[in-house]
Amino acid sequence: MCQRPQGIPQQEHFRLETVEVPALSDGEVLVKNNYLSVDPYMRNLMRRSKSYMDSYQIGEIFGGAGIGEVVESRSSGLRAGERVWGILGWQEYSVHKAGQLLKMDPGVQPATAYLSILGTPGLIAYFGLADVCKPREGETLVVSSGAGAVGAAVGQIAKKIYGCHVVGITGSNEKVHYLKEELGFDEAVNYRLDHNLRIELMKTCPNGIDMYFDNVGGDISDAVFGHINDYARIAVCGQIALYNLVRPEAGSRILPAVLLHRAMVKGILIADYEDRLSEARLELGRWLREGQLKCSETITEGLENTIDAFINLFSGTNPGKQLVRI
Amino acid sequence: MCQRPQGIPQQEHFRLETVEVPALSDGEVLVKNNYLSVDPYMRNLMRRSKSYMDSYQIGEIFGGAGIGEVVESRSSGLRAGERVWGILGWQEYSVHKAGQLLKMDPGVQPATAYLSILGTPGLIAYFGLADVCKPREGETLVVSSGAGAVGAAVGQIAKKIYGCHVVGITGSNEKVHYLKEELGFDEAVNYRLDHNLRIELMKTCPNGIDMYFDNVGGDISDAVFGHINDYARIAVCGQIALYNLVRPEAGSRILPAVLLHRAMVKGILIADYEDRLSEARLELGRWLREGQLKCSETITEGLENTIDAFINLFSGTNPGKQLVRI
Repeated sequence: MCQRPQGIPQQEHFRLETVEVPALSDGEVLVKNNYLSVDPYMRNLMRRSKSYMDSYQIGEIFGGAGIGEVVESRSSGLRAGERVWGILGWQEYSVHKAGQLLKMDPGVQPATAYLSILGTPGLIAYFGLADVCKPREGETLVVSSGAGAVGAAVGQIAKKIYGCHVVGITGSNEKVHYLKEELGFDEAVNYRLDHNLRIELMKTCPNGIDMYFDNVGGDISDAVFGHINDYARIAVCGQIALYNLVRPEAGSRILPAVLLHRAMVKGILIADYEDRLSEARLELGRWLREGQLKCSETITEGLENTIDAFINLFSGTNPGKQLVRI
Repeated sequence: MCQRPQGIPQQEHFRLETVEVPALSDGEVLVKNNYLSVDPYMRNLMRRSKSYMDSYQIGEIFGGAGIGEVVESRSSGLRAGERVWGILGWQEYSVHKAGQLLKMDPGVQPATAYLSILGTPGLIAYFGLADVCKPREGETLVVSSGAGAVGAAVGQIAKKIYGCHVVGITGSNEKVHYLKEELGFDEAVNYRLDHNLRIELMKTCPNGIDMYFDNVGGDISDAVFGHINDYARIAVCGQIALYNLVRPEAGSRILPAVLLHRAMVKGILIADYEDRLSEARLELGRWLREGQLKCSETITEGLENTIDAFINLFSGTNPGKQLVRI
């Protein structure tokens, strides 16, 4: 990152540089990066202000989760040829202490599952459902950004594992089709087309809304709160509608609905579940092997297109987890 | 009630009538009402729309919790002279099925505690703290409408029983003084005087806000959400700032703060704790006897002043539980 953005990030906030691959020190490995993850939360970390994670600094290499292959090793823990995942830079090659990377299980197919359904999006979907929504069979769950990386995992788990009536809110007719035909959602609503989202929610949730998994915030969430049932459970996982606002906007007050319906609203962040990640990965891995869950991914080719893939997250054109293959 | 109000209720929405005391049927008792309870939630039930309880109907006798004395009985369950409490009309005398009233324990002093610290205000304070806020010693709790019936109970329990740093938000310097000197709150803030409530909260909550017990909503709650700590717990018990609005107003969006701090927000209503009321009354009764809690009450004299006492709730001039002695 070479500049902090106001509003939606642009190419000018980043710079692509060609540099020498540094020599390895003892305990380090050189990784050829294969897939990079591109996520909405990164926008929040481009601010100067403190958030739930450290901000990116000006001049620092941008990055996040990724998978790659060890091409050179000065560590006994990893040898050349092994596939690994961890926090990688948006780079072709990167140097890491071996202990900061995890070995991938070659049995997991596709390998990109480590960045989608077995990665942070799948994990936060798992915990948000298990710990906040606590779904019961036949209940109605609404998920905003339903075709996003997290939303696709939430909707599939709620439908296939918990047996819920699942309604996704998304931003195009293509994604409405994708959610219903490819991922098995019961209903999907295009909030851009269906101007009266409240009416669409009433139609698609005839028994009201028992659970809301929110990745978006803003007007979309306002509409959902207008239709919640008594004892509704709301997991707040993302607020992408607000990440690019230069100043906060006013909206509907939600506390009256929370009171009227004795609803429970809880913010969730994957860092709070560090000690339970292996439990979740085991279950998600089993569901993936059994074919109950699909990896929902959009893969962009080439490091040079990483910034565009990131910027496109905020127009929401592509379904599933946005990855870059390099 | 003879008319549904728009905005703050007025005398014209009520009518005082003199009628014959009806003859008793088998199983009924005639009660001379002694104290009537006057509560903000009643405003919500004056709307036509469905709320968490049945609305008042036009022409129906208005009422709520009260205590009285049986003056005539055609039931073996209650005899003349016994003191009882239950749902009474705003009347001098009222007829009830004996099974709908509860006998009062003459050992409870003052008897009006049945309507304040042992009544709904004390009970919802008890459950909101125990089940939602889950206070730990030394944590900071903010309570809005701190000098109201619920707020006075919340602050005292949080301070005396749980050992928290307790800050009340209230609407006059007299009530600031009352909260600190009479009820033992650590700090109190006059939101009408201290125009920048956020700054006052920063001063009075130097370690941030771990718990918020909200009786008010609106701008006051917006200010509190701006200063919550990670893992804050927010009990939503009332939204009096919004009860008299003719149409909903927009406000700050709170979900970004909920996400950033992984806060938990939950709406509470006493009806959801029916099966645990006796547990709570036992504990509250013990704390009252031991002198750890005080009854905080304002008593207005005369049935004819009941409507004024009710209307005055919305200007918030009097501290504690508003009662009418008749």
